[in-house]
Amino acid sequence: MSLNTFGHLFRVTTWGESHGPALGCTVDGCPPGVPVTAEELQHWLDKRKPGQNKYTTQRREADEVEILSGVFEGVTTGTPVQLMIRNTDQRSKDYGDIAEKFRPGHADITYWQKYGIRDYRGGGRSSARETAARVAAGGLARNALARLVPGLSIKGFMVSMGERAADPARYDMAEIDRNPFWTPDARAAADWAGYLDDLRKSGNSVGAVIEVVATGAPAGLGAPVYGKLDTDLAAAMMSINAVKGVEIGDGFAAARLTGEQNADEIAMSQGGPVYSSNHAGGILGGISTGQDIVVRFAVKPTSSILKPRKTITKSGEETEIITKGRHDPCVGIRAVPVGEAMMACVLLDHILLHRGQVGEGLPGKIG
Amino acid sequence: MSLNTFGHLFRVTTWGESHGPALGCTVDGCPPGVPVTAEELQHWLDKRKPGQNKYTTQRREADEVEILSGVFEGVTTGTPVQLMIRNTDQRSKDYGDIAEKFRPGHADITYWQKYGIRDYRGGGRSSARETAARVAAGGLARNALARLVPGLSIKGFMVSMGERAADPARYDMAEIDRNPFWTPDARAAADWAGYLDDLRKSGNSVGAVIEVVATGAPAGLGAPVYGKLDTDLAAAMMSINAVKGVEIGDGFAAARLTGEQNADEIAMSQGGPVYSSNHAGGILGGISTGQDIVVRFAVKPTSSILKPRKTITKSGEETEIITKGRHDPCVGIRAVPVGEAMMACVLLDHILLHRGQVGEGLPGKIG
Amino acid sequence: MSLNTFGHLFRVTTWGESHGPALGCTVDGCPPGVPVTAEELQHWLDKRKPGQNKYTTQRREADEVEILSGVFEGVTTGTPVQLMIRNTDQRSKDYGDIAEKFRPGHADITYWQKYGIRDYRGGGRSSARETAARVAAGGLARNALARLVPGLSIKGFMVSMGERAADPARYDMAEIDRNPFWTPDARAAADWAGYLDDLRKSGNSVGAVIEVVATGAPAGLGAPVYGKLDTDLAAAMMSINAVKGVEIGDGFAAARLTGEQNADEIAMSQGGPVYSSNHAGGILGGISTGQDIVVRFAVKPTSSILKPRKTITKSGEETEIITKGRHDPCVGIRAVPVGEAMMACVLLDHILLHRGQVGEGLPGKIG
Amino acid sequence: MSLNTFGHLFRVTTWGESHGPALGCTVDGCPPGVPVTAEELQHWLDKRKPGQNKYTTQRREADEVEILSGVFEGVTTGTPVQLMIRNTDQRSKDYGDIAEKFRPGHADITYWQKYGIRDYRGGGRSSARETAARVAAGGLARNALARLVPGLSIKGFMVSMGERAADPARYDMAEIDRNPFWTPDARAAADWAGYLDDLRKSGNSVGAVIEVVATGAPAGLGAPVYGKLDTDLAAAMMSINAVKGVEIGDGFAAARLTGEQNADEIAMSQGGPVYSSNHAGGILGGISTGQDIVVRFAVKPTSSILKPRKTITKSGEETEIITKGRHDPCVGIRAVPVGEAMMACVLLDHILLHRGQVGEGLPGKIG
Repeated sequence: MSLNTFGHLFRVTTWGESHGPALGCTVDGCPPGVPVTAEELQHWLDKRKPGQNKYTTQRREADEVEILSGVFEGVTTGTPVQLMIRNTDQRSKDYGDIAEKFRPGHADITYWQKYGIRDYRGGGRSSARETAARVAAGGLARNALARLVPGLSIKGFMVSMGERAADPARYDMAEIDRNPFWTPDARAAADWAGYLDDLRKSGNSVGAVIEVVATGAPAGLGAPVYGKLDTDLAAAMMSINAVKGVEIGDGFAAARLTGEQNADEIAMSQGGPVYSSNHAGGILGGISTGQDIVVRFAVKPTSSILKPRKTITKSGEETEIITKGRHDPCVGIRAVPVGEAMMACVLLDHILLHRGQVGEGLPGKIG
Repeated sequence: MSLNTFGHLFRVTTWGESHGPALGCTVDGCPPGVPVTAEELQHWLDKRKPGQNKYTTQRREADEVEILSGVFEGVTTGTPVQLMIRNTDQRSKDYGDIAEKFRPGHADITYWQKYGIRDYRGGGRSSARETAARVAAGGLARNALARLVPGLSIKGFMVSMGERAADPARYDMAEIDRNPFWTPDARAAADWAGYLDDLRKSGNSVGAVIEVVATGAPAGLGAPVYGKLDTDLAAAMMSINAVKGVEIGDGFAAARLTGEQNADEIAMSQGGPVYSSNHAGGILGGISTGQDIVVRFAVKPTSSILKPRKTITKSGEETEIITKGRHDPCVGIRAVPVGEAMMACVLLDHILLHRGQVGEGLPGKIG
Repeated sequence: MSLNTFGHLFRVTTWGESHGPALGCTVDGCPPGVPVTAEELQHWLDKRKPGQNKYTTQRREADEVEILSGVFEGVTTGTPVQLMIRNTDQRSKDYGDIAEKFRPGHADITYWQKYGIRDYRGGGRSSARETAARVAAGGLARNALARLVPGLSIKGFMVSMGERAADPARYDMAEIDRNPFWTPDARAAADWAGYLDDLRKSGNSVGAVIEVVATGAPAGLGAPVYGKLDTDLAAAMMSINAVKGVEIGDGFAAARLTGEQNADEIAMSQGGPVYSSNHAGGILGGISTGQDIVVRFAVKPTSSILKPRKTITKSGEETEIITKGRHDPCVGIRAVPVGEAMMACVLLDHILLHRGQVGEGLPGKIG
Repeated sequence: MSLNTFGHLFRVTTWGESHGPALGCTVDGCPPGVPVTAEELQHWLDKRKPGQNKYTTQRREADEVEILSGVFEGVTTGTPVQLMIRNTDQRSKDYGDIAEKFRPGHADITYWQKYGIRDYRGGGRSSARETAARVAAGGLARNALARLVPGLSIKGFMVSMGERAADPARYDMAEIDRNPFWTPDARAAADWAGYLDDLRKSGNSVGAVIEVVATGAPAGLGAPVYGKLDTDLAAAMMSINAVKGVEIGDGFAAARLTGEQNADEIAMSQGGPVYSSNHAGGILGGISTGQDIVVRFAVKPTSSILKPRKTITKSGEETEIITKGRHDPCVGIRAVPVGEAMMACVLLDHILLHRGQVGEGLPGKIG
């Protein structure tokens, strides 16, 4: 991973700012022969799109993706795929105050210090709008995965909002797409609706924890020791705006266990090894086991709030700021499809990497 | 980061197995003119060295580092620095059982499946012994940092062992080097001593959480959006053996806050911006703020334990395994200097990267 | 360099096909604060643009470049710069025959074999049209160089067409922009005009040799041993369509010299070392000396000709092919601005790389 | 390719100086399961080894290679392979003069200027001794190729020494290993023997041109547009010490041809496409055709000669230098096995890359 590109063989370079004419990504290394249409990619972009309900920013963006290269007669050609999304709703007047003042907890100040120039309109490059390009790339990755690993599925969902956690005992995966929070716990969804509404009205925001699970991923993915599957997943998730923590499997809870408790015992089935549990989140030594791959990440609350906070201006004067405009009270909601997209990109990348370095399939047979 | 190399400009490639003739690292991109001796590097290796007390593996390794290239007349030349450590205590007979059986929770099975060949002696490449090379590279990075950023200091310490957490209210940084657990909480150290002794005697192991703090790092480090400072720190820490989670600043706790609570308010001092708090862990939008850079990572308990666990053999037969030999009851202890080394490497890398892409200093003045 | 990206820190990823909706490049790593306008980039694109005289393809393309990201208020922000060029003249009917038959000497057959799918319209990704994106990136690199190395100039010119070589004794650099062949030898230009006209009318094509010279580049550029300045220049030039050979300085002629003849003797002037000659082309051990950097590359004749050639179809039948449509009788002409662009990109990249790894200026003083 | 590493998936990082304790390479990405012994690698190193006859430097080096990692029970494990060669004959007193004076035509001056510190003993990192590590890596690549592409062979040979060219009409490939110049033209070998002897006695040196041919390489290798097979070969060869030019197929001669002459016409055989000629050197559009892959490179004469040349000292005084010590009168001779090694590494790398990005075999069938 480097700078604005991620991936080893499936390489995604995103570009564009919140309020520039367009944003997008250049996807290099997509295998040839993958069927893909703009409509299919649009499906995933619509999931991330702002303004869909009162819990996300009211900015109106069609987020229409165009395929500008790399696809011919409906399939990828093995050359770079350019995916572009025009920005249409650019009310830059909303952001006038931010040109001079830095939002506490926001990248405003660090971008300014680092670069000496900053597109302050809507956060410029530091805006979560950049993640639209990731979702487009993730859609392409999904299509490639569908050909390479039939049966693989990737699902993201919210497991807690602020202090309020969903209860795994109530999880129903079919519920995820039925509520605005992408949570499998219907009761939590009901609870969060009122909670977030109050926060939104008071001009505040709140953090969230997202989980992404890949089911049906093959064993053998991951390139120790610095291209481990969990290393790349950690980087992928941490690179998402506002993410402050990443866990694999039991994560921080594993640090509280003994070795006896943490061992996922192994038995043998007709299809190969089976495990008694999945504390490891499907990854051992940086290589996938064939179990569910489980990643969780923590999203901090957005710093664009109506509550006045102390800050300074570019000229160094102390002042206060409140951020008007259209913002997400819980950016974690829209991070769900982004996390799914990153999972898709990382898995595809490692499938290609394994194929390149080792070949098709697994050379180490068991039984 | 890719495969066995990490870093963008300060690139460290580690090589070697637990029971091969040697292990080490090739460091490419160290700036020229950095004074360094083998003795200085040895200081850091000694900190990680096994067999120093009853809480770490009793394997006896001198862990003597040799500088084979890239240093002339006591300073680096700008060419690759090869650091080699001979393995001396290779009692491979201890590992006979592991050649056929897979330890639950260990990389044994995934390495076998992925590669079809595996150096089972001591875990081969998946052994935490690989981290000795990281510590050597980290020592070199520290010397380079000392020239480039006088006053920068990096300190790692243990913040919890199993369920037992140290108490920040009791932290005394001078205490860290006085106890075998590298914890700043003397009372926790006393408590953990008995706790771990019991675990060790019962043949069990336990997880831990490590924190690494860099003080005095300049603002402006980090290359959004996929070479963010926190992205690279997350990857660096997650790549360490047994790590299952990484947090920056408040990490998962930030997900429980509101935007009002999480904002680190900004005021102006003579030296530039100052912050009322450091929820962000010194990183905003992937770029350092100049505050302390705070990373925490969770280490799972080692899977090499004397407690019998159900598993299978390479030929697919179900069986039980207990792992004799010399193992760390809490690998988190020796992960402390490793975490420090990774922090040093990442910071140096980003200092070089910033200098290359932007130049010396920060173009964006405040005040 | 890898796949569709070149450069270490100044990284250019090109995308797009000859007859797709658009092509362009994503430039990652351009330093912040570089003034740039679309008009300035257009200047260089116009130089490469087809259809300017009877010696280049009659395809009509405005080759208008749009800056979609990374530039704010007229200067670069340090974030990715997206440069897009819409394709407008896409007469794909001209290419019907090529969908089934392979042009001898063309990438038609290898793209088909490698990928199993191929955008045959105008050569798709293998078309020299891809180089428009390089020229755009080169224009941006020139603006950055103008700030970082005032006085640096880059000039490309044609030194031979087919068997007919220009004569260095007649070189007048002011002449280059006055003839359609970008040659400094006015007499050669006159000679080539008739020669190429005859070739064009007969439906044939011819090769050429291009030289690119950078004057005023600082000493110290180049990262031995695999990021040498000449290594990267060789890769950059060889990656241009139809290029079959690259030389630095005396190149192949140096292989005919003795060590005594080839040594560029060194004397001392007020400004530093001065050399009696420049057999080395300004590069020793992969690092620039401060002299002119001299690169030459050989461009083969285009394979799209009206002369019938024996070939096969996708279904394996033997047949003949003549390539109608609009083609360059000497693609070497339009390779001149492309070679300049690659030189600009490589030099900027190495200036950033040197700054990152070593710092500003040269630590090794002489005198 | 970057800095001291080359390759995309088969990545070779070389390290070490001429007169340090050792040199070697870290090979990351070698597929698992490749049988290899130190003896097999030694075979290739012996071919490059100095002091074998009066035409190469009289430095005595055993050049014994040790495998320190990545190989277990005689086969590669998929983890990094460390290959180390101890330097034994380090008569550094021979080089005293060079510590202060710069050899004209040598990297002495540029290394000094760039880094401000330089291991002047034997040229340090700029010494051709670095290529021993490449030859070791090339030997490993050959073993991997033998498994992946049975029947592939790589052969390098000298085609001219100074002004004196071998005659292709007299080529007998069996002759190559019978003369000290690795030339297939026995008459040229006899001629060069006397010629080089005279040059050697007079303290002079001379350049050479080397050709490397790979027979039996599959079609489909190469990753357009910046990881083209010819791009990577050009970079690989240009990175070898003293190389000033690289050609693919007809190379510069192709620039003198018309399109009609240069087209390699295609017919159909049972085994697939066959070509009437190979002007292209087996590469079209950066992708291999399945024909012989033909690369030539020009090696300048060494600058370490007994003829006095004008130069300056580090303190800027003008002086003369003659280089005593043990030097190759024609470094081109020992560049032959180095060129072969680079070809092996590049081909293996592209076989892995193709497998990763496209899969096994060629999706585009003909006939």
